[in-house]
Amino acid sequence: MSTDLMPNRYTPGEADVPLRESELIARRDSVLGASYRLQYRRPVHFVRGEGMWLYDPDGRAYLDFYNNVPSLGHCHPEVNAAMAEQAGRISANTRYLEPKLVDYAERLIATFPAELNRVVFTCTGSESNDLALRIAKLASGNEGVIVSSYAYHGTSAATASVSPNLGDAVKLSPLVRMVDLPGPAGVPESQAADFFEAQVRAAVVDLNRRGIGVAALLIDSIFSSDGVWVDPPGFIASGIAAVREAGGLLIADEVQPGFGRTGAHMWGFERHSIVPDLVTLGKPMGNGFPIGAVIGRKSPMDQFGATARYSNTFAGNTVGIATADAVLNILQRDKIPQHALAMGERLRTGLEKLATQPYGICGIRNAGLFFGIDLGLEGATAPSRRAMALNVVNAMRDDGVLVSTTGANEDALKVRPPLVCQAEHVDRFLEALEHALGGLAR
Amino acid sequence: MSTDLMPNRYTPGEADVPLRESELIARRDSVLGASYRLQYRRPVHFVRGEGMWLYDPDGRAYLDFYNNVPSLGHCHPEVNAAMAEQAGRISANTRYLEPKLVDYAERLIATFPAELNRVVFTCTGSESNDLALRIAKLASGNEGVIVSSYAYHGTSAATASVSPNLGDAVKLSPLVRMVDLPGPAGVPESQAADFFEAQVRAAVVDLNRRGIGVAALLIDSIFSSDGVWVDPPGFIASGIAAVREAGGLLIADEVQPGFGRTGAHMWGFERHSIVPDLVTLGKPMGNGFPIGAVIGRKSPMDQFGATARYSNTFAGNTVGIATADAVLNILQRDKIPQHALAMGERLRTGLEKLATQPYGICGIRNAGLFFGIDLGLEGATAPSRRAMALNVVNAMRDDGVLVSTTGANEDALKVRPPLVCQAEHVDRFLEALEHALGGLAR
Repeated sequence: MSTDLMPNRYTPGEADVPLRESELIARRDSVLGASYRLQYRRPVHFVRGEGMWLYDPDGRAYLDFYNNVPSLGHCHPEVNAAMAEQAGRISANTRYLEPKLVDYAERLIATFPAELNRVVFTCTGSESNDLALRIAKLASGNEGVIVSSYAYHGTSAATASVSPNLGDAVKLSPLVRMVDLPGPAGVPESQAADFFEAQVRAAVVDLNRRGIGVAALLIDSIFSSDGVWVDPPGFIASGIAAVREAGGLLIADEVQPGFGRTGAHMWGFERHSIVPDLVTLGKPMGNGFPIGAVIGRKSPMDQFGATARYSNTFAGNTVGIATADAVLNILQRDKIPQHALAMGERLRTGLEKLATQPYGICGIRNAGLFFGIDLGLEGATAPSRRAMALNVVNAMRDDGVLVSTTGANEDALKVRPPLVCQAEHVDRFLEALEHALGGLAR
Repeated sequence: MSTDLMPNRYTPGEADVPLRESELIARRDSVLGASYRLQYRRPVHFVRGEGMWLYDPDGRAYLDFYNNVPSLGHCHPEVNAAMAEQAGRISANTRYLEPKLVDYAERLIATFPAELNRVVFTCTGSESNDLALRIAKLASGNEGVIVSSYAYHGTSAATASVSPNLGDAVKLSPLVRMVDLPGPAGVPESQAADFFEAQVRAAVVDLNRRGIGVAALLIDSIFSSDGVWVDPPGFIASGIAAVREAGGLLIADEVQPGFGRTGAHMWGFERHSIVPDLVTLGKPMGNGFPIGAVIGRKSPMDQFGATARYSNTFAGNTVGIATADAVLNILQRDKIPQHALAMGERLRTGLEKLATQPYGICGIRNAGLFFGIDLGLEGATAPSRRAMALNVVNAMRDDGVLVSTTGANEDALKVRPPLVCQAEHVDRFLEALEHALGGLAR
């Protein structure tokens, strides 16, 4: 496998790019440098967003079925109004008393099981996971972390070092252990829990044998970077119990599944009927405003807070809080998680119909509006499946629909539209997918 | 010394707090928990901000001489308009082409010496320092970090572990070495450079002896957490050379001194006539919007970028960029750094006059509008000096002027008003300080 695990990207010279864009790319490369990759073989260039749609400078509309940050749609007027109104009033930090901070903290915590009754705000999902790991290490007295074999948990030094998804160039911590998931390993659902538990127990034994101990099992409940593995519900429970037996905590990374994306529930871990010790939030929390949080049980949160001062300048400032409050209000008022469930079902039904055609759809996995769609014609090699996924993604981009790839072999489509998508958008996506698959099949 | 290094804070039961506030504090404690400290013995409660002023629910105005995030003043209408306008248009991420990102990156880099020509955006100063350390480690092939003995560089696991300022409860990394500063050690300015260099060389020798090597000297050019030590300009240069000889990089943490605070220059390191390898930005960059950056030389930045994918979801999104662009535009258009220099001189003159009175002002250090003011009557013990600073800060708070403390003994006033303060604000601050000192002296 390549050390660069972002296959769906622009590579200079490999595709025709219009002059306007190639000039902008040259300027961009000369100031932003090599860290900044552009998605798609022919990069997209957007100047306006509205709801499910992004528009290029020529006014061409692209249907966004990929961005999970603006869950309520691009440029949501009500969210933006809340942000602007608060910015004109005050942006207080958390060392001053401000009722909005407390009001929102109470409302957010009320969406969690009763055991999870403390919140600390951050600015990003990476900061949330970084902080949760610090809390888990202090609470457990241990140092080891267990993640899934293709996990991604953030960009900070600590979170990147437990993110095998970042590839060979980012060194893994000597204190992290990876566990295989039953789905990608081809284990039948009836044996999924036992398989997962056995993997976790082996990691615990190894960490203990080396005197490292286990501080946390850090997982997202839909294993998004591993290719979206959601079933059977509950398959992670016995593995979690094994970690707790060993003194470790469960950190549920809800940066991607959280805030209703998995449908019906507000939080992805609820599908598995488990209650984490710590929960980390990010991406859609402010519909684009940089805000995240760690929610947790009283004991580890207070143990950390009482000793280790945690002060995050921007986190919990009133503008971020007012924005996040508007998002949560809309999610609840408009029953967005339930809507995500219904739209996810429509999308799944459409995909299952496409899968009856000889297009190469060989797996459909979803929870709500987070889908992994395996592609590959019968008998295809891993590289050819990977190439096929990349071709589909780029054909859809040319057709005006945005998705990307996921999974260890990057041969699954990663589909996660804003949660406000309607039947017409689902149908447009299915049409574009059929068109792309049909074009390849020809 | 206490393990809790935030002396200026509310402690339940130690001060009379009105019912409205004590009820809010009780609710706050029950959801936010022990991490969240409140400043001042009697916490402040603000509901509106405008320019230099914060207002409590009763409409009482407090002059803000402490907050270095809203450098252009609270609720700046032009900055907020730029944010709101962009939020209504598009909030694109950096994997899509968007000209504003490139325009701002070019404008930001143009404010730096020519050698510093690459930028990566983050969301917070902590993320900036965390990323800069990753880059320095990759570029140098070494692991060791040298910081000042009371430094603070962030809240992430990696940055907290090189922040002795956080106190005993946050473990330092075995790979960090602290160096004493000449000022707090009582070394005369004529020997400051030699003293600093000797400290750094000793740290390098120790890191090399253990096979760790030196990846970076990480310092902020005004040593704000150490008590604001700014003179003589250039005293850090030979220590920096020693680090480079050993293969390490200089990371200039400009989160606090940056964006004109030190007066005349845009960047604090310019006072020392040195050019860093990496520069980290945060706090005032968006006047409150969560945005930061790492600026660097081509070689380490491209070495990192070419291999280690760095993707920060919110960082560099168009709303943050538009906000930061408005801030930079105003800083340059209104010559704010020059204004900060002039106001800093007025404040210094006033303080020097107060220092001729028997009030206990025994040291005044500043660069532009960042001041450390040592307090202590002749022959006073360290605890009594610390108590005096705390008393002054709280008396000023009661008088409607906000400042706090800094330094290893927390016996210096930390004064850093928004850069837009005018002569009348400086005079009001001096009046309140004289009043507080006079009241204590009675």
